[in-house]
Amino acid sequence: MKEDQLYAMRHSLAHITAQAVQHLWPSARFGVGPVVENGFYYDIDLGEIKISESDFKKIEKEMRLIINKDYVFERSEKPIDEAIDWAKSSNQPYKEELLNDLKRSGTTVAKDLDVAAMGTITRGDSALENVSFYVDGDFTDLCRGPHVDSTGKVGAFKLMRVAGAYWRGKETNPQMQRLYGVAFATQEELDHYLVILEEAKKRDHRKLGQELDLYTTSPLVGVGLPMFTPRGTILREKVAAYSSQLRKQRGFEAVWTPHITKKELYEASGHWDKFGDELFLVKSQETSDEMALKPMNCPHHTRIYASQPRSYRDLPIRYLETTTDYRDEKTGELGGLNRVRSLTQDDSHVFCRPDQIEAEVNTLLESARELYGTIDMQLRVRLSYRDDSDAYLGEVSLWESAQSQLKDAVVRNKLDYFEEDGEAAFYGPKIDFMATDAIGREHQVATVQLDFVQPQRFGLEYINDSGERQRPVMIHCALLGSIERFLSVYIEHTAGWFPFWLAPEQIRILTINDTVLDYVDEIKTILSEVVLMSPVKYNEVRFTTDDRNESLGKKIREAATMKVPVQLIVGPKDKEVREVSIRTQSGEEKISISELPSYLKGL
Amino acid sequence: MKEDQLYAMRHSLAHITAQAVQHLWPSARFGVGPVVENGFYYDIDLGEIKISESDFKKIEKEMRLIINKDYVFERSEKPIDEAIDWAKSSNQPYKEELLNDLKRSGTTVAKDLDVAAMGTITRGDSALENVSFYVDGDFTDLCRGPHVDSTGKVGAFKLMRVAGAYWRGKETNPQMQRLYGVAFATQEELDHYLVILEEAKKRDHRKLGQELDLYTTSPLVGVGLPMFTPRGTILREKVAAYSSQLRKQRGFEAVWTPHITKKELYEASGHWDKFGDELFLVKSQETSDEMALKPMNCPHHTRIYASQPRSYRDLPIRYLETTTDYRDEKTGELGGLNRVRSLTQDDSHVFCRPDQIEAEVNTLLESARELYGTIDMQLRVRLSYRDDSDAYLGEVSLWESAQSQLKDAVVRNKLDYFEEDGEAAFYGPKIDFMATDAIGREHQVATVQLDFVQPQRFGLEYINDSGERQRPVMIHCALLGSIERFLSVYIEHTAGWFPFWLAPEQIRILTINDTVLDYVDEIKTILSEVVLMSPVKYNEVRFTTDDRNESLGKKIREAATMKVPVQLIVGPKDKEVREVSIRTQSGEEKISISELPSYLKGL
Repeated sequence: MKEDQLYAMRHSLAHITAQAVQHLWPSARFGVGPVVENGFYYDIDLGEIKISESDFKKIEKEMRLIINKDYVFERSEKPIDEAIDWAKSSNQPYKEELLNDLKRSGTTVAKDLDVAAMGTITRGDSALENVSFYVDGDFTDLCRGPHVDSTGKVGAFKLMRVAGAYWRGKETNPQMQRLYGVAFATQEELDHYLVILEEAKKRDHRKLGQELDLYTTSPLVGVGLPMFTPRGTILREKVAAYSSQLRKQRGFEAVWTPHITKKELYEASGHWDKFGDELFLVKSQETSDEMALKPMNCPHHTRIYASQPRSYRDLPIRYLETTTDYRDEKTGELGGLNRVRSLTQDDSHVFCRPDQIEAEVNTLLESARELYGTIDMQLRVRLSYRDDSDAYLGEVSLWESAQSQLKDAVVRNKLDYFEEDGEAAFYGPKIDFMATDAIGREHQVATVQLDFVQPQRFGLEYINDSGERQRPVMIHCALLGSIERFLSVYIEHTAGWFPFWLAPEQIRILTINDTVLDYVDEIKTILSEVVLMSPVKYNEVRFTTDDRNESLGKKIREAATMKVPVQLIVGPKDKEVREVSIRTQSGEEKISISELPSYLKGL
Repeated sequence: MKEDQLYAMRHSLAHITAQAVQHLWPSARFGVGPVVENGFYYDIDLGEIKISESDFKKIEKEMRLIINKDYVFERSEKPIDEAIDWAKSSNQPYKEELLNDLKRSGTTVAKDLDVAAMGTITRGDSALENVSFYVDGDFTDLCRGPHVDSTGKVGAFKLMRVAGAYWRGKETNPQMQRLYGVAFATQEELDHYLVILEEAKKRDHRKLGQELDLYTTSPLVGVGLPMFTPRGTILREKVAAYSSQLRKQRGFEAVWTPHITKKELYEASGHWDKFGDELFLVKSQETSDEMALKPMNCPHHTRIYASQPRSYRDLPIRYLETTTDYRDEKTGELGGLNRVRSLTQDDSHVFCRPDQIEAEVNTLLESARELYGTIDMQLRVRLSYRDDSDAYLGEVSLWESAQSQLKDAVVRNKLDYFEEDGEAAFYGPKIDFMATDAIGREHQVATVQLDFVQPQRFGLEYINDSGERQRPVMIHCALLGSIERFLSVYIEHTAGWFPFWLAPEQIRILTINDTVLDYVDEIKTILSEVVLMSPVKYNEVRFTTDDRNESLGKKIREAATMKVPVQLIVGPKDKEVREVSIRTQSGEEKISISELPSYLKGL
């Protein structure tokens, strides 16, 4: 199925939805009805009447009738004034408003209308002439198209939900009802989507975050500012430690910078002009300093680089800092860990010579491959290059050499990749990593980003082997990206069943009765000496004991609810033969306690 | 020597300084001359004449003449108007201004004058009557006293420096010259002080911080916001890891909270009213949220405690977080690491039942004793209790029980302690730790602080064994305090010669020539497998190699400059017999490379 054909199907279903609503509630007034991810919606004004999910069956039935009639979608054009007359006589004030706006401002304003409105007009090369309409059966809509040939060719669909939406997104405008549907070419694809959706709901990290006691939020602290409990903090610390370890083994050194700075730092870097209004501003009451919370760490790191004279022999210099950045996100966009205002980055910056780019990128790709291999997520990378426009800073020859070094490193690492011209940042080419989760969703994770501009803006230098001053290249890289966002993806990827090395509570000892308490002490002594060395080093095992006077069944159920990967069940018979029952997701088995350490290290 | 006698000596020396200056420059006009730590100063207006250090000899000679005359300090009183006449006729406009202010505003304004001016008046119980003067020989000064009997009894002194100072601290006032001196009862004490001062200069952490490449600052980032280089970051991370380890072994769990919050959190805690103007305010440009950078972590931690229902069986709950707090210090007070705006606290909070206070405090005292024992600093503690005033919140019986539990824990830990009534915070009694450094200076470091108020303000609860709601007690504790401030103390304590486990670069291999390079590789392989387990666990040894084609002498000098505690010197003969020369601060010795790991673990 080609993307544009699926688009036409979904767009046609938006019309059919409105048509069905008009059949059921003839007074309906329509706003816009665009295609969105996985489906479509239509904004509808029904006056006092509120559509609810219980109406979906009725609407869907009406839609199926229209589909079964297999009406042809017929395109026609009208001059703008005739179109306005049509809207008036059809009692469609929202369409009339769109058309009047269009008439008043010509084509230019069309860009300011939202996506849906864009879909309703046709225009000449520069000036508005006619607007196009589509008719199917008894329903006419102002529309740019495209549509499928006839209503019978729209594939499989399902209405999903209805929600309030202000006309044209403005709070002062009337509130309409936005009716959402999903649609796919075949019933199989729709069913698959619905299964995934159901599965995604079960894995929702906000739900699991609460059930597994990983993080909490507070209205006193504010939205987008999660606080991590002891269990969630273990997740944070272990993934961050692993990400650091992978780079420290490859010559990176940790540095530390404060979370605030005077705005002069971002004026120097150029970020103030570009992102000044996305920053949290910090006001000193004691001084006149104008400050900001850092949204990224590179400008601070350049200050450490610049604190000493550097020679070509010192390069590459590789700084690593896992630190929290702050971004003033709109609160409507905040939810769970996916998008937060406090994002902790496992950030690193290499300062190197131009001829060292490939080796350094290779090092970072190795680290990323190892990390995502360990956590069992498929990686795919996009190589983003410059195009021929003049939107890019830095010498073309440096860009060309850098792009070919990036690609060589990607190929050397046997990564699944694709290339896109014109997708580079203005300051350098980059590699974006996409990881696929257990239910097939792809998430942007790590990035490796070259930067030719900051070294220049900050006047960074090294002395080459001829004693001349040269400019280093910077390589930005975060393997996890934002740790909060990574955890939101990873909690859903694993459905909260974290691998043994990472689980906050790795082992729970469950006693059958109190006669085994001395034996449990022995087991605890053994466990307290087990230290895992892989994937993250010096990982002391984390265990608890449930020796309450409760039934074993209850204890097992509670441990399973908390998704404790290893349950050690200890009863009088186990004590007698010096064994334990190990219960994991893959079943139950008995082993001798002397084998316990090697068993755990093998998990 | 009693404190008030030393005070009188220093105060008398201030007069003698002014008297000597008047002898040398009869046009001198005098401001105020108070006693300060270790000595005194006098503010002097000499018009165009600038005093410099080269004048000190001359001034000190004149002072000794006055001392040798052994003039008696004679006290007298004058009505305020006569005093003003005296100032006029003596051409002392600053004294005249002080007296006029005093006359105009009576006793009340006297409190607003600075410390020195306070010393110049005498008054009746409520209304100003007379002002007192002291005369010694040919010098008369408006002064409250006290003084020594005669100029011969002022002990040993030395002029130290001269600096500009605005009259009464206002930038719009004339600039005067502030002449500083130090003074002690005996020459021995003065000499000792001067030696310590010299030693302190050598150890100045700002100087060592630069020489040893530990941290840097940038005018673009701002004052009081140090950035830590790789070397300095190792110090930070290792001391923080040790401090955490000591508590994790005792049941503390790490949590994570963001650096910002809505101000509602501090309104709830009560900090907004008390410290609102000491906070960095954070402005969201996307929302109307009023926010602040956190100056402490307890309110955030209460949110994690409150995120779940708690039972008496769950307590104590012990949270640990090494995180950076921000305080809007006046920039004039900022310098080096001693006082910063970004202070990283090794903070912890225990939530416990009232009957668990002693055991919990004991745990923290054990941790503090172990930490300061390891880093070889003497500890002394102050127990701060409530008094009978009504300045304290919480039930008296709870205070009494808590104070006696604190003391029992201190006694049990055999700590050198003293007790002070009326020194507790309004929210609970506390223990402050003072550590003495290698040159005898005492620094406030760790604190253990009980808190009866925040649990109440935040409505924290647990369910006791009868199913009733109870209020937990909070125990705040930081073992290092602010890591930045701790490092400022510790760098000076060690003079930059960090113990082996902590040194950023622990070992430097110095080659005698290139014939040993393969042998050096062998040594590096051995070193890369050495992991120290004490005092901080899993401490992989950090080594570098200096195999440049330079003389051994130069290599040794450079390693000593960087205060690398272990230098491994490797020459062809060492290679032959499979030895290395180990050079440390205590000398040089040869050992077999097979003994190297155990040697290093024993350091």
